[in-house]
Amino acid sequence: MAGEKINVGVVGGTGYAGVELLRLLVMHPGVTLKAITSRAEAGRSVSDLYASLRGFIDMPFSEPDLTLLRACDLVFFATPNGAAMQMVPELISAGVKVIDLAADFRLKEPALWRQWYGMPHACEEMLAEAVYGLPELNREAIRQARLVANPGCYPTASVLGFSPLVEQGLVDVDNLIADCKSGVSGAGRSANSAMLMGETGESFKAYAVSGHRHMPEICQTLNAISRKTVKLTFIPHLLPMIRGIHATLYARLNDPSVDLQKLYEDHYHAEPFVDVLPTGSHPETRSVRGMNCCRIAVHRPQDGDIVVVLSVIDNLTKGAAGQAIQNMNLMFGLDEACGLQQPALSP
Amino acid sequence: MAGEKINVGVVGGTGYAGVELLRLLVMHPGVTLKAITSRAEAGRSVSDLYASLRGFIDMPFSEPDLTLLRACDLVFFATPNGAAMQMVPELISAGVKVIDLAADFRLKEPALWRQWYGMPHACEEMLAEAVYGLPELNREAIRQARLVANPGCYPTASVLGFSPLVEQGLVDVDNLIADCKSGVSGAGRSANSAMLMGETGESFKAYAVSGHRHMPEICQTLNAISRKTVKLTFIPHLLPMIRGIHATLYARLNDPSVDLQKLYEDHYHAEPFVDVLPTGSHPETRSVRGMNCCRIAVHRPQDGDIVVVLSVIDNLTKGAAGQAIQNMNLMFGLDEACGLQQPALSP
Amino acid sequence: MAGEKINVGVVGGTGYAGVELLRLLVMHPGVTLKAITSRAEAGRSVSDLYASLRGFIDMPFSEPDLTLLRACDLVFFATPNGAAMQMVPELISAGVKVIDLAADFRLKEPALWRQWYGMPHACEEMLAEAVYGLPELNREAIRQARLVANPGCYPTASVLGFSPLVEQGLVDVDNLIADCKSGVSGAGRSANSAMLMGETGESFKAYAVSGHRHMPEICQTLNAISRKTVKLTFIPHLLPMIRGIHATLYARLNDPSVDLQKLYEDHYHAEPFVDVLPTGSHPETRSVRGMNCCRIAVHRPQDGDIVVVLSVIDNLTKGAAGQAIQNMNLMFGLDEACGLQQPALSP
Amino acid sequence: MAGEKINVGVVGGTGYAGVELLRLLVMHPGVTLKAITSRAEAGRSVSDLYASLRGFIDMPFSEPDLTLLRACDLVFFATPNGAAMQMVPELISAGVKVIDLAADFRLKEPALWRQWYGMPHACEEMLAEAVYGLPELNREAIRQARLVANPGCYPTASVLGFSPLVEQGLVDVDNLIADCKSGVSGAGRSANSAMLMGETGESFKAYAVSGHRHMPEICQTLNAISRKTVKLTFIPHLLPMIRGIHATLYARLNDPSVDLQKLYEDHYHAEPFVDVLPTGSHPETRSVRGMNCCRIAVHRPQDGDIVVVLSVIDNLTKGAAGQAIQNMNLMFGLDEACGLQQPALSP
Repeated sequence: MAGEKINVGVVGGTGYAGVELLRLLVMHPGVTLKAITSRAEAGRSVSDLYASLRGFIDMPFSEPDLTLLRACDLVFFATPNGAAMQMVPELISAGVKVIDLAADFRLKEPALWRQWYGMPHACEEMLAEAVYGLPELNREAIRQARLVANPGCYPTASVLGFSPLVEQGLVDVDNLIADCKSGVSGAGRSANSAMLMGETGESFKAYAVSGHRHMPEICQTLNAISRKTVKLTFIPHLLPMIRGIHATLYARLNDPSVDLQKLYEDHYHAEPFVDVLPTGSHPETRSVRGMNCCRIAVHRPQDGDIVVVLSVIDNLTKGAAGQAIQNMNLMFGLDEACGLQQPALSP
Repeated sequence: MAGEKINVGVVGGTGYAGVELLRLLVMHPGVTLKAITSRAEAGRSVSDLYASLRGFIDMPFSEPDLTLLRACDLVFFATPNGAAMQMVPELISAGVKVIDLAADFRLKEPALWRQWYGMPHACEEMLAEAVYGLPELNREAIRQARLVANPGCYPTASVLGFSPLVEQGLVDVDNLIADCKSGVSGAGRSANSAMLMGETGESFKAYAVSGHRHMPEICQTLNAISRKTVKLTFIPHLLPMIRGIHATLYARLNDPSVDLQKLYEDHYHAEPFVDVLPTGSHPETRSVRGMNCCRIAVHRPQDGDIVVVLSVIDNLTKGAAGQAIQNMNLMFGLDEACGLQQPALSP
Repeated sequence: MAGEKINVGVVGGTGYAGVELLRLLVMHPGVTLKAITSRAEAGRSVSDLYASLRGFIDMPFSEPDLTLLRACDLVFFATPNGAAMQMVPELISAGVKVIDLAADFRLKEPALWRQWYGMPHACEEMLAEAVYGLPELNREAIRQARLVANPGCYPTASVLGFSPLVEQGLVDVDNLIADCKSGVSGAGRSANSAMLMGETGESFKAYAVSGHRHMPEICQTLNAISRKTVKLTFIPHLLPMIRGIHATLYARLNDPSVDLQKLYEDHYHAEPFVDVLPTGSHPETRSVRGMNCCRIAVHRPQDGDIVVVLSVIDNLTKGAAGQAIQNMNLMFGLDEACGLQQPALSP
Repeated sequence: MAGEKINVGVVGGTGYAGVELLRLLVMHPGVTLKAITSRAEAGRSVSDLYASLRGFIDMPFSEPDLTLLRACDLVFFATPNGAAMQMVPELISAGVKVIDLAADFRLKEPALWRQWYGMPHACEEMLAEAVYGLPELNREAIRQARLVANPGCYPTASVLGFSPLVEQGLVDVDNLIADCKSGVSGAGRSANSAMLMGETGESFKAYAVSGHRHMPEICQTLNAISRKTVKLTFIPHLLPMIRGIHATLYARLNDPSVDLQKLYEDHYHAEPFVDVLPTGSHPETRSVRGMNCCRIAVHRPQDGDIVVVLSVIDNLTKGAAGQAIQNMNLMFGLDEACGLQQPALSP
C-alpha cells in the first residue's frame, strides 16, 4: 500500500457504530472516505446529522449504490442484521474487501443463524470463508481475509476474558458464567420507547435472560478455543449510561494453585489492545472510553477455587468500530495500531 | 399502643439512610419524632440540610445526648459502623428499644466482626440478644426484640433471592454466586473523591472483589437457613445512578425439574414486601424506587441446571430505612405495613 | 362529599403524566379508580406496563368508552394534545367534571390555539368556561369549575416565579426573560429517537428557541396578572435527567429598593404548595422530586436593578399530575392538600 | 523549532484539567513530557491514578521541584488558584514560558484579584505582562508571550458568544445576561460532599448567584472589546453530567435589522476552533465533547429586539486544556491546530 490510501465505503453510517467508525476513519492517516450510504438519510449532510463531525466530513449520505461501492477497496457494513448478506457476494466478486459490523457472518452454522436471527441466510456459501475478526485469536487469517465478521460487543469482552483459562483447560467448561453489563448505545439509535432516557435512566435491569444472540457467538468461539463444548450462562444487563461494557466472568478452577496473574500477563504480553491490570485491580469502563482497548483483571476471591475475571471495553470501539479499524489495518498490511492510538476520554 | 404514638429518636440523621428514614417517619401515622441528633450539625435546622423535608420537620439537629434519647420509646441509629455499640447498652438498660441501621449487631461472632470491621466490639455480650431484622426470616423474634440489627442492603437482596432455594436444599451450596450492583447512595454522603459524580458518572466497575463486609453477613444468614456452610462468591459493582440494588444470583440445581416459579410464589405468598414477578420477567430497580419492596424473578436459562434469580430493592428503603420501619412496626405491634404503602416513584 | 369517594376515570394513562397521576391517586384517601383507558394498551394490566404500581392497581387498561366515563364523577385526560377536546363536551353535558392535563383548554383564543397546535379547535365554545387550573391564581374559580385546564409545566414554574413582581408592576414587562430547563420526562414516553438515552444523556442543549407552545400560555397568564401586554423571551433547554424543571427568570426592577424577600414571603404566605426559600438560597430540583411543590428563591445580584428568580418544580407533579390532584381537591370540596403531603424523594 | 520538540512540564497534573492536558499532550506530535508534578501523589505512577493513560505515560508524579521545571521550555500550571503565582517569577526569569490554567494571572487589577480570590497576589508586577490566552482575541500577543493566563471555562463560552455583538456596539451593554450551565467536572476532583453523585445526579440548580469569580473576568474582557463598562448578570448552574458548558446569552439589539447570522459567520470565518452553526440551530454540548471547539448559534426569537446566543464548549478542552495547547502552539510557532484535530466523542 506504500503511499496509497485505502478507498473506503461505509454502508449504514447513521447508527452509533457508524458514527464511531466515521470518527475513527477521519483520524486515520491511511484512509480516503469515498462514500457513506444511508437509504433513509440520502442527500443529507453527514455532519448535519452528526454535529460532532462538523469540519471533518463534508459529504452527504448517498444511496447504497453498488456501482459506487464496487469502486472502493474496502466496504464497512454498519447496518442492521440481515442487510450485509444481501450485498456482500457481489462486492467480494468485484474484488472489494468487506468488514461487517453486524452479525451476518459471525455464526458458522446457517441453522444456528436462522434460529437466533429469525430469517434464512442469504449467502450461506460465504459463511465458511468469513473470518471471525477477533485479532487476538485470528490475526493471521484476518490478514488474508476478503470478508471479516466483526465480533459482537459482549463476545469481545467475554472471549478475551475467558480465553487464557479456556485455551489451557484450566477451568470446568461445563459451568461458565458471564454476567455482562452494557451501556445503552449497544441497543442502537432507532426509535424505541424502551430505550428512552425516561425508561433507562437511573435504573438497572437484566434482559434477555432466556437467551441472547451473543450467547451462541460466544460459545462457538470458546468451543473452538477449548476444543470442547462449553456450557455458558450468559446474562446481559442494561446500564444507565451510554458507552461501555463490563463482563464479570466466573469459572471453577481445576487447579487453584495456578498463577493467574502470570497466565494473563503472558497470554496478552504482545497484544497492543489488551491490557492486563496489576493484581487486585478493578477496571472501570471509563478507562477505555473511546479507546480500542480491553482491560482485564483476574481475581481469585478468598483464595478459593472460583476465578473471577473483570473485562471492560467500550462497546462502540473495541466492541465495534475500533476493532473494525484494527481488522482493516491487518487486511491492508498497515501497522495494526494505525489510527487507534488515543488515550481514553476521562473523566 | 392504642392511640399512643411511638416516641422516636434518630441518631445520625445526616446520611442517606438517615434522610430516607426521616422521609418515612414524617409520613408514618404512629410516630412522634422527639430528637434527631448529629454531632457535626447540632443546632442546624434539619430542613436546612435537607430541603426535601422543608415543611415536614422544623426541629434542629441536637447533640447525641443520652438523657434525651432515654426519653424515647425507640432509637434508630443511622450512624457509621462502630457508633451504635457505644450507646446501645445504656439505652437498652433504660428500657429503650433500638434499631441499628449500621453493622454493629449483624454478625454473631465477635471475632468475625473484628476481622471485617477492623475494631474490637464494644458490647459483645449483646450480640446474642440482637435479632437480625429481616422480617421474612425472623418475624416473630423481631416482635419480641429489644435490639434489632437492620440488615445490610446487599444481604437483603441476596438472602431474599436465595432463600427459597437454599432453605429446601435445592441447590449446590458449595458454589453460590451473587453478582450484585448498587447505586452510589450505598457509599454514603461523606466527602470522598472516589464518589464524586466526575468519578462515578458514565462508568461502571466492580469493587472489593477480594472481600466485602457483606459477604460474611450473607453467609451467616444462608448458613442458618440451609443448616450447612455455604460457599459464596460475592462481587459488588458500582452503578452510575443513585438508588437501587440489583442482585443477579447463580446456583446449580440439584434437580432441574423443580417448578421454580411455584416455589418462589408459594414461599413469598403471604409476604407484604416481597413481590415474585411472573415467569420471564426482568425486574427493574426503578420499579421499587423509594418503596419498601423486593421484587424477584426466577429463571432457568436454556432449561439447563443453572438457576438465575434476579432480585431488586431500593438500597435506602427495603435495604435500609424502609426495612427499619417495618421492624419498628413489628416491635411495637403495629400493622407491619403501616406507613410503608406508597408505590415506587417512576419514572 | 361526606364519606363518599370520588369516582375517577383516567383517559390515556400510559404516558408519564398518566403514571404519575395513578401513583398519586392510589395514595389519595378520597378517590375510587373506576377506569383507566388506553386505546393502544386496552386489555393489558396496568401494573404489567408499570411495575411500580404492582400491588396498588389490579385493573386492566380499557378502551376509552364514553359509557364507562359518563359514570364517573371526574375524568382526567392525560392524553396527547387534541384528544380531550373530542370527548369533553359530551362528558360535561353528562354532568362529569373534567381536568385536562394536556393543552386543549389552556389558551383562550381559538386562533392562538390553532397557530401553536396546528389544528382547529373541536369545541371553541368551551374555551371561555374552562378555568386555568393554577390554584395560586384561580382558586375560587377552580372550586366552581366543571372543566379545568391544567397548566403546562414551564408555565407553572415561570408564572409562580414572576407573579409577585408582575402583579404589583415592579418590573419592566417589556423585557422578561425565562431561561428554563426541563428533565426529559417532559417530552413524554412515545418512541422518538431524539429522546433516547444515547441522545440525551451526558449532554445539554436549548430547543425550540424560535418559539415554544408554552410561550403564549405564559404570556396569556402574565398579561392577565399585569393587566398589560408583556414581552417574554422564553428559552427551554433539555436536561440530562428525568424529572424536574428549573426556571431562571430575569427582569429589570423599576425600583431596586423594594424588599424582594418580603414581597415573595408575603405573597405566598398562605400557599400550601409554594415555598419561598430563605435569602441567598439556590433551590435544587431534587428538593421537590415527586412532590407537589414549587420552591422559589429571589435574588438581586450585586445589588443591581436586575432581579433573578429561581423557581423549581417536579414537571410531573406540581407541573402536571400533582397540580391536577390539587385542582380535584378544590373542585370536590376536599382539603386542598389531601393526598399530596409527602416529602420529596431525595437523594 | 524545526524538528525539535518542546520540553514540557506539568505542575499539578492530578485534577481534571490536568488529566485532560495529559491526554492531549501525549497525542501531540511536537511535545516531550519531561515532568508531571504533584506534591500529594509524588512517586505514584501517573497511569496508576489515571488508568485512561495506561500505555501512554509511564513516568511517576514528581515533587514540584524548580530545578526540574527550569529545564523545561514550557510549564503548564493545572494547580488550584494561588499556586502558580508562587513559582512563576522564578520560571520566567529562567527563560521558561508558562501557561497557567488557573486564575492567578487573569485579572489585571490586583485589588480585584484579592477581592474575588480572597488572598493578596504574590507577584502583582507580572499581571501587566501576562497575556489573556483567548486566541480569538489576542492571537498576536500570545505568539509573543512568555506568560499566558488561560481563560476560565465560563468566560471562554460567554466571551466568544458575546464578542461579535459587543465589539461592534450592536447591543445595549448595560444589560447583558449570561445564563450558564456547566457539568460537574468544572468543580474539580477534590473531595467535596456537595459534588458527590448522590448530591448532583438527577438534579439541577443555580449556584453563586450573588457573585461568581468568572464574572469580573468576563466583564474585564467585554469592557476591553466594547471600550465601555458593561453590566452583566452572570448566573452559573450545575448540570447532572460530567463535561460541557452551555452559555445562553441575552442582549437587547440597538438595531434589530442587523443580519446576525452573517455577522457571526463573518466574525469567525477564519477561526479554526469556533464553529458558527446554520440558522435555527441548537448546539449540543456533546457535539464538542473532548474537542477544542466552541459551537455557536445565534437567534432572534419572534423577530424581536432580543438576541439569544447559544454557545457550547467542553469545559475541560476549549474551556481549559485544549485552549492551553492552542496557546502553546501559538507561543512556539507551531500550527495553531497541531494535536487538536479530533472530532468530538459522540454519543
